[in-house]
Amino acid sequence: MTALYDVAAIGNAIVDVIAPCEEAFLEAEALVKGSMQLVDEAQAIALYGRMAPGMETSGGSAGNTVAGVASFGGRAAYLGKVAADQLGDVYEHDMRSIGVAFDTMRLTGGPATARSMINVTPDGQRTMCTYLGASIELAPDDVKPEIIEGSSIVYLEGYLFDPSEARRAFAKAAGLAHAAGRQIAITLSDAFVVDRHRGALLGFIEGQCDIVLANEAEVKALFETDDFDAAAAKLGAMTKICAITRSEAGSLVLAGRDSALIPAFPVEKVVDTTGAGDQYAAGFLLGIARGLPLATAGRLGALAAAEVIGHYGPRPQVSLETLAKAEGLI
Amino acid sequence: MTALYDVAAIGNAIVDVIAPCEEAFLEAEALVKGSMQLVDEAQAIALYGRMAPGMETSGGSAGNTVAGVASFGGRAAYLGKVAADQLGDVYEHDMRSIGVAFDTMRLTGGPATARSMINVTPDGQRTMCTYLGASIELAPDDVKPEIIEGSSIVYLEGYLFDPSEARRAFAKAAGLAHAAGRQIAITLSDAFVVDRHRGALLGFIEGQCDIVLANEAEVKALFETDDFDAAAAKLGAMTKICAITRSEAGSLVLAGRDSALIPAFPVEKVVDTTGAGDQYAAGFLLGIARGLPLATAGRLGALAAAEVIGHYGPRPQVSLETLAKAEGLI
Repeated sequence: MTALYDVAAIGNAIVDVIAPCEEAFLEAEALVKGSMQLVDEAQAIALYGRMAPGMETSGGSAGNTVAGVASFGGRAAYLGKVAADQLGDVYEHDMRSIGVAFDTMRLTGGPATARSMINVTPDGQRTMCTYLGASIELAPDDVKPEIIEGSSIVYLEGYLFDPSEARRAFAKAAGLAHAAGRQIAITLSDAFVVDRHRGALLGFIEGQCDIVLANEAEVKALFETDDFDAAAAKLGAMTKICAITRSEAGSLVLAGRDSALIPAFPVEKVVDTTGAGDQYAAGFLLGIARGLPLATAGRLGALAAAEVIGHYGPRPQVSLETLAKAEGLI
Repeated sequence: MTALYDVAAIGNAIVDVIAPCEEAFLEAEALVKGSMQLVDEAQAIALYGRMAPGMETSGGSAGNTVAGVASFGGRAAYLGKVAADQLGDVYEHDMRSIGVAFDTMRLTGGPATARSMINVTPDGQRTMCTYLGASIELAPDDVKPEIIEGSSIVYLEGYLFDPSEARRAFAKAAGLAHAAGRQIAITLSDAFVVDRHRGALLGFIEGQCDIVLANEAEVKALFETDDFDAAAAKLGAMTKICAITRSEAGSLVLAGRDSALIPAFPVEKVVDTTGAGDQYAAGFLLGIARGLPLATAGRLGALAAAEVIGHYGPRPQVSLETLAKAEGLI
């Protein structure tokens, strides 16, 4: 069956609150630089009170990825839970206005739309504290079979391993996708997520996953080793296709005996790394969905990552399709 | 009496929704490039539905100015009305986190926090459609005498001439300020505002105002002439101090027989002109409040304007105090 969508993603629907900070702020708040940690509502309010003025933009890892897919001219759908509040309005608008199908029922009478407080140090590194709010209420009923079965690739966040209800939604999506002969992709999301859910993640990757995206820290955490090459080889042996990003050192893509080292695209100044991995995934998954060569998919990912780290905010601010055409990639 | 604040500002408290757009979008929406127009809630919803994904940041002309004053290391207070909603929380946070005193009672049971949809064309020009929402409910009771009487300069937006209740608040503030021997400053805000309220504005400037800020289009509109020099001379004759900005042509500052032409600071790339006039006002008013020479005040304004047009968003993203010290201005 011809796919309706190149990529359908399921994720925690989160509004980002992005503010610059000094290194000393992270120390004072006891935050691990570059990590994502979950906070409850009271912690969120307290941290927000100490943060600098911010800008609010739609975020959420998989949400950022489908926004990137749409920017490449791809067809994308999103499943995620926001509340019936102002930030939920913003989230929905930001999806639909770029042509991403997004019809998950809004949450009423529960917690507010999720938000992630992202403190960005002068080197462009982002450190995230996320209050999951309404996003945690994504339930199996929200996983619409017609979306999942109509998508070339169904993409899932490792972050969804945290909330239990979302995890059931996740399992339902994986079952539907496989039954329909679709490919399932996952991102490991964060090294701490990998630590918390190593066994479940390994089981899912081995049993149900076709494509895995990870960064260097995550793949090392998955196999509990400091040896990147060993970890990458293990992941490669376990998956049909995988892509491992290494920041300015580029990325390694593997597919059976096929592999490629993809250099990072040059960036004038790294302003904010938020969304770098998400946009890499957008380019890579679009390339795979369209049947492009593995190395081309990797270069599309690198191109998208380079665009997003040059400005504040986790989603592209220019057309990735235009950039990719200029590079002769699509 | 020593002032508690360098500048206290009264304005429409507005959250900006900023999105890039093409020139064709402005044409299709019949929007006058570079202008601000008021829209009702239904129009706001319809326009938002057609806009690109945006970023939300605290805005509002006078609010941006006091944020700039604080960034210069000045002491500032703000009076403006937001609702008890999520965007109101954002607005309040963004003020208080930079040390601006902001205690106006939140609106409950009425319209939502005001928002301005700002479409930014590739040349960096912004075109604004503003839904005034809760901001219009600012009332005379919200004007706290201890704030007004404790501020070297009380700064008012021309935009406040539109909603009648705010206009009464405005008049109360002017009366209190003058009685306490404080200076009153106003910005003309927008050429269409000047057209709508020319008589009232002229009366206010002549009768109650010490400092006037305007751009070229606004001062021409005020005196219904295309002759810039003639309009500037008329404004100069009518005010103790005035500053007229002319984009990349710099600004003209006048104070009795004293005058100076201030060049614009160089900008690598104009990304978004939103807030340029507001930040000019921040530097200029801080300079005047501190008793610096007229030309220095103008250069502080030009410096702040140059910072803000280099990025999306109407408020400084780096410390203006640091920039000003590097230039030897403070």
